[in-house]
Amino acid sequence: MRNAVLWFCLALSACASVPSQDPKEVRSIIERHNSDAERWYASGEIDPVASMFAEDAWQMPPNSPPLVGREAIRQFWRQAVKWGKWEFSLQTQDVSVSGPIAIERGKYLLKFVAGPGAPPGMASFQDRGNYLVHWRRELDGEWRAVGDAPVSEVPRAPQ
Amino acid sequence: MRNAVLWFCLALSACASVPSQDPKEVRSIIERHNSDAERWYASGEIDPVASMFAEDAWQMPPNSPPLVGREAIRQFWRQAVKWGKWEFSLQTQDVSVSGPIAIERGKYLLKFVAGPGAPPGMASFQDRGNYLVHWRRELDGEWRAVGDAPVSEVPRAPQ
Repeated sequence: MRNAVLWFCLALSACASVPSQDPKEVRSIIERHNSDAERWYASGEIDPVASMFAEDAWQMPPNSPPLVGREAIRQFWRQAVKWGKWEFSLQTQDVSVSGPIAIERGKYLLKFVAGPGAPPGMASFQDRGNYLVHWRRELDGEWRAVGDAPVSEVPRAPQ
Repeated sequence: MRNAVLWFCLALSACASVPSQDPKEVRSIIERHNSDAERWYASGEIDPVASMFAEDAWQMPPNSPPLVGREAIRQFWRQAVKWGKWEFSLQTQDVSVSGPIAIERGKYLLKFVAGPGAPPGMASFQDRGNYLVHWRRELDGEWRAVGDAPVSEVPRAPQ
């Protein structure tokens, strides 16, 4: 019997290298990340925003080229916060979790208010849409965004 | 010893209700789905396209409202294929798999060629961008798209 229990434990530990975390707990971690991000984008604190992304993350701003890698994301936003104030509102709608992967679907609103540092011709604007974010639980136990795909609902002007 | 093997098998089967499939295998299933979809969109066969989406799927066409549910996706595309020819090119770049969840990142090209059935003012257009797709292995063993978030790289005209 002792042998059997040993085998049981061995099998359990072997079957999943990264055990699943409670999905409710993961969702609340993600929601906390999002409300932190809203605050940091708005106040222009970009280093903590960048640290929420994985080294190899892709951020895909709507109607713009993608930002590939945490460093590219940091560099872009360090510039962008000089142009004005970015007020994001991120509303999680669904989170699916399996092992070290989570996928979040949500709705976003963005209000950009151009400041004195905005490049010539860059006006204030608003955007809204839906997003998928691919989160990964990394070796240090932190959940980081690996893919960030916000899809704008705002129509494109006719080409 | 027979007892131990029994326990081992029991533990293995209990530890993951949906065991992970080989990621390479999942990627090739997804790539096959994508090349099927390219063909079906182009030929206007929408029922098999719709059957690749989960009942509760969200498809988020860029700069448009989202299509929520397989039925809404089917209805939209049944109309849209009457407007002209939709030539998609989907290029998978990365697939992460854990249990019944997979996330695909890729690049897309779209060439829409307006036909005689296009609504007034709807011209041919091209689009390109990056996407995340959330795939789920469902109870029948099929992988279906649950979330489809294509983000256009084509700039929006100034508002």
